[in-house]
Amino acid sequence: MISGKTTLVAHIGYPTEAFKAPLIYNPWFEKSGIDAIVMPMGVKPEDYVAFLPLLFRMSNIRGALVTMPHKVTTISLVDEVTPTAAIAGACNAILKREDGTLLGDQFDGAGFVRGVERKGRVLKGARVLVLGSGGVGSAIAASLAGAGVAEMALFDTAEASVEALADRLRRHYPQLVVTTGSRDPAGFDLIVNATPLGMKDGDPMPFDIDRIAPSTFVGEVVMKSEYTPLLRAAKDKGCPVQVGTDMLYEMIPAYLEFFGFGTTTPEELRAVSQIRQ
Amino acid sequence: MISGKTTLVAHIGYPTEAFKAPLIYNPWFEKSGIDAIVMPMGVKPEDYVAFLPLLFRMSNIRGALVTMPHKVTTISLVDEVTPTAAIAGACNAILKREDGTLLGDQFDGAGFVRGVERKGRVLKGARVLVLGSGGVGSAIAASLAGAGVAEMALFDTAEASVEALADRLRRHYPQLVVTTGSRDPAGFDLIVNATPLGMKDGDPMPFDIDRIAPSTFVGEVVMKSEYTPLLRAAKDKGCPVQVGTDMLYEMIPAYLEFFGFGTTTPEELRAVSQIRQ
Repeated sequence: MISGKTTLVAHIGYPTEAFKAPLIYNPWFEKSGIDAIVMPMGVKPEDYVAFLPLLFRMSNIRGALVTMPHKVTTISLVDEVTPTAAIAGACNAILKREDGTLLGDQFDGAGFVRGVERKGRVLKGARVLVLGSGGVGSAIAASLAGAGVAEMALFDTAEASVEALADRLRRHYPQLVVTTGSRDPAGFDLIVNATPLGMKDGDPMPFDIDRIAPSTFVGEVVMKSEYTPLLRAAKDKGCPVQVGTDMLYEMIPAYLEFFGFGTTTPEELRAVSQIRQ
Repeated sequence: MISGKTTLVAHIGYPTEAFKAPLIYNPWFEKSGIDAIVMPMGVKPEDYVAFLPLLFRMSNIRGALVTMPHKVTTISLVDEVTPTAAIAGACNAILKREDGTLLGDQFDGAGFVRGVERKGRVLKGARVLVLGSGGVGSAIAASLAGAGVAEMALFDTAEASVEALADRLRRHYPQLVVTTGSRDPAGFDLIVNATPLGMKDGDPMPFDIDRIAPSTFVGEVVMKSEYTPLLRAAKDKGCPVQVGTDMLYEMIPAYLEFFGFGTTTPEELRAVSQIRQ
């Protein structure tokens, strides 16, 4: 029950209609007796830079979940970023510290990697293809590099973005073989769709599913439906897959710790979740 | 259940701890199947002017409930104000219209007057004392004048504020006898405490209760507890009283209509309210 003592966690992005986090966090807060609320806030790109610092001047805000299209911009709006966020070039979490300064962190990549590893997949030495070098794609690439993959191919139609990500990866992980410029999916152990393709009905596939082996692990970021057209095609081929919400449920305990609300497990979160596919 | 499609009604003030509106609106929204949420936002005075226009640029905000200390400032931050708000010199409600422009209105005074009249008190021709000429005091004065009181005494330690209110009242209600400068409560039919006195433990009484008759109607704006020290003393004397939350419950139907959420009754609101004194 929201009152004047309730702590606000802003969920900032635009548009907001597909937001899922409130349907997980808020039931968990209620079950755990924590007086906090995740509230969606639809902030347009042209307003975000001016709005964010003022939002955090509020007396009852603890932090923010940041999503598209603001994750990259956030890097330059906080007082300090964690190493993960710096490499990813994006933040999806902001904490207001006791002195009022803002710390930016990034849990997309950690959520994705924890989900893959929980499914028994070994990432060390693997060959991976990351499609999309926006906030979430960069974050996943950074975390996959941190998990010890051997080769990483990056593809995005935004060439400057993908080359910048490749440079940051090479600088931080000199032993990692990073290539760019091709979306040919043949020969990889793991492929991630971190593009928005699949959010709209009629979107093309992010890559040619006919060219992957049934052993290829296919991960998805889009959460419009649990099994996107890409994941359905991958499953039909016999590929192991990771749905978009797995990344979400895996990253939430990390967020909760970051905000100082304690912790939980993906299983407990799925049990309280009000998401109905 | 809050989702990405939920409409936000911001409840803006500072500090937020004593806010009651979320405990009434939100259960009523839920019972009525309306996907909207009243969320407290603690905005400090020095941030409000810059923050408000940006807040209303959000895609999922419908309006705001505005409370202390921002009601007077709001007048100059919206595109248009209603006549009631103009006379009161304050807004406690902001509607974002379809074209994105902001309309400011004021329901404190209407809520107070409707509550008094519902208790059978005749305001036409009455002599009233209004203590406090901030946003809520000015609003109550404007609505009491509109209800046809004959004489009105105003008192506030902020002399410029009280004289400006007196001038506005005299201009709009030339037949009304308006006096200022005394808080002596003797001889009035109705006295309203519209000062913050009573919000903190140990606050002095807003006026000398020994000098009022048992027939004097005593109204209160402070909602820290249902019966403030002032109201307890007035009740002990046998005076009819109006508690702070009566004003709140009486004004909510007007707010709901203003925001386009339909309407209801004070009785229905009290039935769903989660306020526990």
